[in-house]
Amino acid sequence: MDEKYSVIGKSVPKMDGRVKVTGQAKYTGDLKFPNMLVGKILTSPHAHARILSIDTSEAEKLPGVKAVITHEDVPSLKYGISPARWDENIFCIDKVRYVGDKVAAVAAIDEDTVYKALKLIKVEYEVLPAVFDPIEAMKEGAPQVHDEYPRNLNAEIHQNFGDVEKAFEEAYYVRTDRFVGNRTYQAPIEPHSAISIWEGGKLTVYTSTQSPHYFQYYIAREFGLKMGDVRVIKTFVGGGFGGKLEPTGLEFAGAVLSRITGRPVRMFYDRAEMFAHNRGRHRQFMEITTGVDKDGKILGVHANFVQDGGAYTSLGIATAYYAGAMLTLTYDFKNYKFDMHRVYTNLPACGAQRGHGAPQPRYAFECHLDHVAQHLGIDPLELRLRNARQPNTITPNEFGVNSCELTACIEKAREISGWNEKKGKLPRGRGIGIAVGSFVTGAGYPIYRTDLPHASAIIKVHEDGTAATLYTGATDIGQGSDTILCQMAAEAMGFTYENMKIVSADTETTPHDFGAYASRQTLMSGSAVKQAGEEVKKQVLEMASVMMELDVDDLDCREAVVFSKSNPEITRPFGEIAREFFVKKGPLVGRGVYAPPKLGGKFKGAPVGTSPAYSFAAQISEVEIDEETGEINVKEVWDVHDCGMVINPSLLHGQVHGALFMGMGESVWEEVVFNDKGKILNPNLAEYRMPTALDMPKIVSELVESFEPAGPWGVKEVGEGATIPTMGCYSNAIYDAAGVQVNTLPLSYEKVWRALKEKKEKEGKI
Amino acid sequence: MDEKYSVIGKSVPKMDGRVKVTGQAKYTGDLKFPNMLVGKILTSPHAHARILSIDTSEAEKLPGVKAVITHEDVPSLKYGISPARWDENIFCIDKVRYVGDKVAAVAAIDEDTVYKALKLIKVEYEVLPAVFDPIEAMKEGAPQVHDEYPRNLNAEIHQNFGDVEKAFEEAYYVRTDRFVGNRTYQAPIEPHSAISIWEGGKLTVYTSTQSPHYFQYYIAREFGLKMGDVRVIKTFVGGGFGGKLEPTGLEFAGAVLSRITGRPVRMFYDRAEMFAHNRGRHRQFMEITTGVDKDGKILGVHANFVQDGGAYTSLGIATAYYAGAMLTLTYDFKNYKFDMHRVYTNLPACGAQRGHGAPQPRYAFECHLDHVAQHLGIDPLELRLRNARQPNTITPNEFGVNSCELTACIEKAREISGWNEKKGKLPRGRGIGIAVGSFVTGAGYPIYRTDLPHASAIIKVHEDGTAATLYTGATDIGQGSDTILCQMAAEAMGFTYENMKIVSADTETTPHDFGAYASRQTLMSGSAVKQAGEEVKKQVLEMASVMMELDVDDLDCREAVVFSKSNPEITRPFGEIAREFFVKKGPLVGRGVYAPPKLGGKFKGAPVGTSPAYSFAAQISEVEIDEETGEINVKEVWDVHDCGMVINPSLLHGQVHGALFMGMGESVWEEVVFNDKGKILNPNLAEYRMPTALDMPKIVSELVESFEPAGPWGVKEVGEGATIPTMGCYSNAIYDAAGVQVNTLPLSYEKVWRALKEKKEKEGKI
Repeated sequence: MDEKYSVIGKSVPKMDGRVKVTGQAKYTGDLKFPNMLVGKILTSPHAHARILSIDTSEAEKLPGVKAVITHEDVPSLKYGISPARWDENIFCIDKVRYVGDKVAAVAAIDEDTVYKALKLIKVEYEVLPAVFDPIEAMKEGAPQVHDEYPRNLNAEIHQNFGDVEKAFEEAYYVRTDRFVGNRTYQAPIEPHSAISIWEGGKLTVYTSTQSPHYFQYYIAREFGLKMGDVRVIKTFVGGGFGGKLEPTGLEFAGAVLSRITGRPVRMFYDRAEMFAHNRGRHRQFMEITTGVDKDGKILGVHANFVQDGGAYTSLGIATAYYAGAMLTLTYDFKNYKFDMHRVYTNLPACGAQRGHGAPQPRYAFECHLDHVAQHLGIDPLELRLRNARQPNTITPNEFGVNSCELTACIEKAREISGWNEKKGKLPRGRGIGIAVGSFVTGAGYPIYRTDLPHASAIIKVHEDGTAATLYTGATDIGQGSDTILCQMAAEAMGFTYENMKIVSADTETTPHDFGAYASRQTLMSGSAVKQAGEEVKKQVLEMASVMMELDVDDLDCREAVVFSKSNPEITRPFGEIAREFFVKKGPLVGRGVYAPPKLGGKFKGAPVGTSPAYSFAAQISEVEIDEETGEINVKEVWDVHDCGMVINPSLLHGQVHGALFMGMGESVWEEVVFNDKGKILNPNLAEYRMPTALDMPKIVSELVESFEPAGPWGVKEVGEGATIPTMGCYSNAIYDAAGVQVNTLPLSYEKVWRALKEKKEKEGKI
Repeated sequence: MDEKYSVIGKSVPKMDGRVKVTGQAKYTGDLKFPNMLVGKILTSPHAHARILSIDTSEAEKLPGVKAVITHEDVPSLKYGISPARWDENIFCIDKVRYVGDKVAAVAAIDEDTVYKALKLIKVEYEVLPAVFDPIEAMKEGAPQVHDEYPRNLNAEIHQNFGDVEKAFEEAYYVRTDRFVGNRTYQAPIEPHSAISIWEGGKLTVYTSTQSPHYFQYYIAREFGLKMGDVRVIKTFVGGGFGGKLEPTGLEFAGAVLSRITGRPVRMFYDRAEMFAHNRGRHRQFMEITTGVDKDGKILGVHANFVQDGGAYTSLGIATAYYAGAMLTLTYDFKNYKFDMHRVYTNLPACGAQRGHGAPQPRYAFECHLDHVAQHLGIDPLELRLRNARQPNTITPNEFGVNSCELTACIEKAREISGWNEKKGKLPRGRGIGIAVGSFVTGAGYPIYRTDLPHASAIIKVHEDGTAATLYTGATDIGQGSDTILCQMAAEAMGFTYENMKIVSADTETTPHDFGAYASRQTLMSGSAVKQAGEEVKKQVLEMASVMMELDVDDLDCREAVVFSKSNPEITRPFGEIAREFFVKKGPLVGRGVYAPPKLGGKFKGAPVGTSPAYSFAAQISEVEIDEETGEINVKEVWDVHDCGMVINPSLLHGQVHGALFMGMGESVWEEVVFNDKGKILNPNLAEYRMPTALDMPKIVSELVESFEPAGPWGVKEVGEGATIPTMGCYSNAIYDAAGVQVNTLPLSYEKVWRALKEKKEKEGKI
């Protein structure tokens, strides 16, 4: 770490660590309000069916039931988190589109009564043919999920940069591979929960959210309220990973139930309902064609993808875009073609999950490149080095990359993993694989089109200077943004972390910020916080200049001590100066704001620009395969990350570990499985098999620091980036170990066993 | 109301009205934290005793007990709310000084266990002679409450302005009367309660407080913590009336119990413990001598008072000062002498109670003046008119009075009460009486000596301008300061009250304010809020000037609409401009601060200056006496108040009603009664007889508006002022009705009956 910083670059303890480990942290589901009712949503048992009638009369008669609502009681305005693709209703009006679609809701005095009442609602359905496969769904004559979208095409992207056909013609070797991803779910440990209190024409919602702002915006829009009349308060959040970015039926139905009953209404999804609500990873069908020269230099790439979007858009427009847009970040090539169809099916809607659209395409690309390398007889690591993106370059799809230490990441990964000693030299059944990745540091455009700045911050210093409070709309969902933003505030102010306080993620008491998604907060919220801190420091130094009778340019402040730069022994406590400021001028306040630079680019069918900065990573894993059973034993993983300047190493490595954990689960075990009626067969943590701590390999997380000019103190993203290379890196290691490549995720023991069996049969060994 | 204002001057609903009436408001005692312990304090059963030994071993053994502490476990630093008169310890070290003095404390898992454990603590006492009467306590040889204060003199004031002796020599009539006040207690409906959480070297206290700032300051001082490491959060407060201004044993012992156990500790006083903690009204012995000329013009006054302070200082230094200082406000005379002895006794400590020191002296003075008037044959109302203070005058003790409509108040009271038709003309047993009063609008100096500004405020506007949040340290204890400060913020910003939000009285999230005492917030906190609002408006108008292409001087903003002053049809919504400001410049924030003007004066033994402004009031009451029983039936009360500009008439009249209620209780019924061992005989709401709604007479509350130049929009105080004249006005009415004057408070039925009996005996009628 750079010793020129006194607060950032250090693993200070988390702001909320103590209250969390002592059980004092209150999550939305822990909150109690007098007279609070419990609400639940009645969902559809059919994947596709016309609603013929809904009879709520028996439910209404049940003692303890305070309200029963259907589509007739709520606004019919369609909503959604993708701009201009609003396709969801609070309750289904004409038909249901997946098992779990929202039909009605009940508020009652306790959970028992609510569940009884749900059973008393009589819904008459006419079951319709359903479609569960996106390839089938695109065919003529397939069941239509939404009448407005022929052939179930929710989104279509066709981008063409350079001349891919010409590149392929000129290539020494052109190869096409096909891969299929898996439908996975974030499964945060804290279920969705919302408490709505609608009174006096104003609505307060306590909820488990990644973005109080988007919740406020979309809830206000749905009910025709002014934003100022909707207050959204994030309590503690037990993980989001993309699934808590958009308001759910809990907030919409809860608001109406509260308005009707005049009482607070608590709503929640149980674990099975969480799976049905979903908004997890899209399953993608991926065909990748690459042309290379004799040395393995990539000349052109064509990515042709289909995404199973499920029944609604959710964040899928961005998912579809990111799937192709981020493929170009890691390697330097000129010609790129991207085709994408995001398709409606009668399954739960997919959305953003850590890495948002990018991990599966990256898995496909990295496996595909290992085949290319093998064909050319080039070491896969070497192939990546030959193509690795360099700093200050522009991608074929016109993303400006500033800092980029991908080459150094690959080299360091090679060194610490012992790649040279292992590749091709490991005993039978063991293998090593590499993959790289890159991710955005925030989105250049927010989710709904707006000219608003993306982040802002206010800092208020206590009247005697012994504490300072940061007000930020940035959203700590466990990743530690409260902590690093306080570190940044203290660094910018010349203050101490220990004396920072924070108020965050409450639309009423904190200034605007778009929240936690797209790995945006360290750079974007951090920029606003830095500016606010600097404004405080400027005022402190000006006051100190008067008090110390020194030129303001000769003064600086560090760790709450103002000092003369020319004679550092002349000092004055920050607190004394802050106090004098308060006495002379009133509250010592700093303000900051951040809007991303307008990013260039001439896209077809895509937003202009995408992010101010990109992280890079190389991952190497070593695996052992049990050839009898197909069991995959990951021995060790080496992750080397370029995420710019590091604010808190311990939190950073925590993010890498978490991302790897998630990527590993999706690589080997996780998959949401449906029966032939579209019903989830494993909507629980026993049968949806996430890795446990015991499943985790040894992880070596290392850094190649860089300085990202677009970020405060040179920071960029880490929270999602480490998820990106994992699937490809595992798949390549398995290929190296067993000589078989499974082209569908997850790379389950069974699939590996079957592939090994097939290989042996081919080789005549069985 | 003045139509030039759109938000102030209107009876908008209270900010917190809805949550209070629906039971959603959480008071400190309603809060629950995981693992929270219950703590209680063991108090002394003796009024005066030496502590020989304390044995906590049995209590410690009781299962469920987590900590038992005595003076050995806590800092021995003395504390107190009067500067430089710190005389109280967390726990008594050498001896106890009143029944209820703090000896030890226990924290345990539940209330049952705590109470059992308290009984298991063995304290060996050597009982000492005690003194309960302040006159006795001043005598040589009386028991000494504190060794450091010979003759138990806690405070002595001797002031001499002009030449009183000469005035008396020149007077046509000089008269002396003696009165004795009563010891009363505020008895707020919400008991004191505090939850302390000490972890990681920092302390958070949720508590029922009138001033988070003083709590923070004195708690930090006691434990040697930085203020920034102590967070004090006011929750909802169910009344204070002066008794919740200083931290109690609950906060001090609770903090230590939490530090030792590592768990949150909830402490509370039950109703009897509240009475024992007290800090209510001082009982005063009052001798007043006045010299007048033939026309009743007052030439000089000598006030010679003794206060029973109880065992500790509490706020008593200010009480002693106010008792004399405020006597000069209502009448214009030149020569004034004030002698005060505040005396320690072995009774619970007295402090500030609504009207702080002034009501009893005012009662004495107003009764005394009726005797003077009777002697001179002048109508008592006429006597007051002849002497009434005029605006822009200076009192003999050098208080500068700006606005003063006392004459108009008296005239209006005369008119609406029908004084002229009633005085001397009512049937036997009925009578009418008048008294006047005046009160400070905030103290020129805070309670501890400091150069800090007295109030500050921050306003943040929502990014789309549909809401604004006011951050203020001002403390709403039920009186409605949150409401009127939001009205003031909206008025200053040109915004709407309905869209104001507030964060108040939390030392971490709000800027500094001294809190709710001395009727200071409307003027002082209001000044800071007005300035913050004006800073917002200025920025809005500057931005509007650019957007509307109009000169900024031609623009104004009202009710969230910016308009051209020269052509009011040209308008633009506040929200649009606020949003543009956010886009262009970041968070729209206004800051304000208030420090009172340095007030002049050459006092002996008193602080310099006292308040920036003074309210005035005249009260007339009509009573009926049952001569057989002494029962006093108050038929109607007319209060006419000069409190400057009125921000919220409904809250204002609520304050008048509440103050009258309190004054009435103290006049006729309320008295804390002790046995001969210093034990309170009536520490409960059944036997400490406060008036109920059914006891209340018809109240006519009227205003004479004035414009106070020291206050924002011309405001001044009302919260305490209406308490001041009540006792005198009732006493005078009783005198008028029955021809007897009871010279000791309360003016109980029994005393009236005895006085009537004595009178009849004298007249030979019995």
